[in-house]
Amino acid sequence: MRQDVDGERLWRRLMAMAEVGATAEGGSCRQSLSDADEAGRALFLAWCEARGYEIRKDRIGNLFIRRPGRNRDASPVLIGSHLDTQPTGGRFDGVLGVLAGLEVLETLDDAAVETARPIDLCVWTNEEGCRFQPAMMGSGVACGVLDLEKALSARDGAGTTLADELVRLGYDREAPPRLPDSDCYIELHIEQGPILEAEEKTVGVVTGGQGIRWYEISVHGEETHAGPVPMALRKDPVPVLMHVIELVQAIGRTDEDARCTIGRIDLSPGAINVVPGRADMTVDLRHPNEAALDRMHRQLMDGLEALRQNHKETDIDGHLTWHSPVVTFDGVLIEAVRASARARQLMHRDIVSGAGHDAFNVARRVPTTMIFVPCREGVSHNPREYASPFDVTAGANVLLDVTLARSSASTSLPLPELAPCSRRLAADG
Amino acid sequence: MRQDVDGERLWRRLMAMAEVGATAEGGSCRQSLSDADEAGRALFLAWCEARGYEIRKDRIGNLFIRRPGRNRDASPVLIGSHLDTQPTGGRFDGVLGVLAGLEVLETLDDAAVETARPIDLCVWTNEEGCRFQPAMMGSGVACGVLDLEKALSARDGAGTTLADELVRLGYDREAPPRLPDSDCYIELHIEQGPILEAEEKTVGVVTGGQGIRWYEISVHGEETHAGPVPMALRKDPVPVLMHVIELVQAIGRTDEDARCTIGRIDLSPGAINVVPGRADMTVDLRHPNEAALDRMHRQLMDGLEALRQNHKETDIDGHLTWHSPVVTFDGVLIEAVRASARARQLMHRDIVSGAGHDAFNVARRVPTTMIFVPCREGVSHNPREYASPFDVTAGANVLLDVTLARSSASTSLPLPELAPCSRRLAADG
Repeated sequence: MRQDVDGERLWRRLMAMAEVGATAEGGSCRQSLSDADEAGRALFLAWCEARGYEIRKDRIGNLFIRRPGRNRDASPVLIGSHLDTQPTGGRFDGVLGVLAGLEVLETLDDAAVETARPIDLCVWTNEEGCRFQPAMMGSGVACGVLDLEKALSARDGAGTTLADELVRLGYDREAPPRLPDSDCYIELHIEQGPILEAEEKTVGVVTGGQGIRWYEISVHGEETHAGPVPMALRKDPVPVLMHVIELVQAIGRTDEDARCTIGRIDLSPGAINVVPGRADMTVDLRHPNEAALDRMHRQLMDGLEALRQNHKETDIDGHLTWHSPVVTFDGVLIEAVRASARARQLMHRDIVSGAGHDAFNVARRVPTTMIFVPCREGVSHNPREYASPFDVTAGANVLLDVTLARSSASTSLPLPELAPCSRRLAADG
Repeated sequence: MRQDVDGERLWRRLMAMAEVGATAEGGSCRQSLSDADEAGRALFLAWCEARGYEIRKDRIGNLFIRRPGRNRDASPVLIGSHLDTQPTGGRFDGVLGVLAGLEVLETLDDAAVETARPIDLCVWTNEEGCRFQPAMMGSGVACGVLDLEKALSARDGAGTTLADELVRLGYDREAPPRLPDSDCYIELHIEQGPILEAEEKTVGVVTGGQGIRWYEISVHGEETHAGPVPMALRKDPVPVLMHVIELVQAIGRTDEDARCTIGRIDLSPGAINVVPGRADMTVDLRHPNEAALDRMHRQLMDGLEALRQNHKETDIDGHLTWHSPVVTFDGVLIEAVRASARARQLMHRDIVSGAGHDAFNVARRVPTTMIFVPCREGVSHNPREYASPFDVTAGANVLLDVTLARSSASTSLPLPELAPCSRRLAADG
């Protein structure tokens, strides 16, 4: 018999959680390991304790809530997301995956369903990365992608370290972060983009995550007074900056899956009446296909080299500062999401995640997938962030179906192949 | 008999003044009304007192040093410049005009030359405008271009007002600033541009000053995550910013006297992985011809309108924030500078000042001109600023010749016509 989550209970809990750290604009601010974040966790843990679930914490503040299975030795099914928000956060980003996970556990309890495998509901610390960098920190440390000591030394704008906050909140007494040997990980999340809404789909079958490459580009010219120096004698970096923007836009047009963003531009010294001596900018390139991303990288490097040749009056630096390889989710799990959406007659489509998620870290260790639901106008990290009760319930039902399927499965999924971390990049870096 | 300045004495004084507020890099830092600025003035006044000149100060700290003429009632010849510097100032900007002025007075004394008119050597307060805004403040107030009360309320970065500093230094007991009825004003200055050096000229015959118009342009798009949103669905202000740069560069190519500068660009929120919601930039347009500047203004406004039509995904604001009309110097004085350079067999050319000077304010009230000498590589506002002893002496000799010519002239020059402050601008503003 098919189980269904209690959509009203889930919605009430989403709205209750939003009151913790509520902002005047209707959103929530629970930056990682702040008092508001800890209050949100306390509310969540109270709900879990009321059901008698076993609670485990680790040294970086990750939470693991276990609903036991028939076979205590079987590797668990992991579900979950995060409760921390951006300073201008909304009510759904992260919270949906955690509270829908709790809803799955309770639905199984209410229907007295006994699963073969245990189910672990995970709450990852500091997914957002706004207060402490890098983002996706708790999952990164638990999955061995990020060094614990490095994470502990991260400092917020006020100079407080992550380690200080973990001591203050008592997490320093817990065991070192470690991902349990697991059957799989499934994360429900809002899309944070406009595609599902535009195509009137309820479920995004997430096949993987875009690869990301970050660059810093500097154009060095010569600072001079805006009045006395004729245009032809200037070494102005701004016309070169213009060509870099043109180049990045052209790379973004090569195919419809390419994403190219210039998020920051600084002119130095930055005075209205001074020809800048220097222009600095950042570039973010993304693509769901690693080979295509390699091509985009090559286009950027070749384009900068051509600009260097054509603009001898300036020097141009451009280099890769960080990259995250393309993530490919597990085929069996993807098909299970698709099958659930089909069975429930929910409109769905395959989609690639453009944003980073804890699931990207977990995918390096255990078979993983994600489920997306639409959010209004694609807006997130904003008090206007909104997902409808219908879509929220639908997403939670799909999470329930896949969790139930995997927690009843007797054979384990094959371990993921590690995504290639292109050595080519290091050579160009 | 032709008089000549004592170039070595002038050079020694320039180097002595540079020791007041000397910086490790070889420049000087005497920001207006600081202790260092006041110490520089004290050194200068000691030199003046040793000659017994009459010293007058005013309430904003302007200094007037008088060498009397035969006819006490004749309107004086004004010469001078400023002693304050940028934080990273050099040894010549402003200081040259003041100390060459003192050199002129002393040369006349040494040769026992009696002039018909008195000569007033002016030291204007806060020409640089780096500590207190606006720039050219002392001359602006004395010439009625700037309101005294507004100037007194200007605040530096530490919150100190100009009025506070004037009280501290005792200037508040002096008479209100007022430009004396004068025959003319002549200011010697380094070019602060590369033209004289490039053409191997010693003297720039300054015919006037560029008109300046400042603009703030904002492109409003929609902030979104760099990953999930396809390029075609973005409302990214950066491609529009690119077209604005293109437009401004094109305006700068319309004729060789046009100067166009984008000095500041800000993307908001300014994160590497966020498509900016907004781009703000400044534009500085300059031209020595007011009609040409009108055309440049029109090109900018029309260009922004065309971008507005072609980029409906964004909103574009662009408006004039400040303007300074074209300054035309006095024809008789210009010809006197040219005649002196010719007589002394100094290579010279006509030139238009790209930078603002106290002379621009004074030109609104009395017949005015300027004399430029080259500075190495056009560099100023920098410890590397340098003018050679030969050029410094040559400039001072031209200043001496013109001062002597005007202080012996019995008929006064015609008063300047006020430059037109285009009403058209207000309509567009």
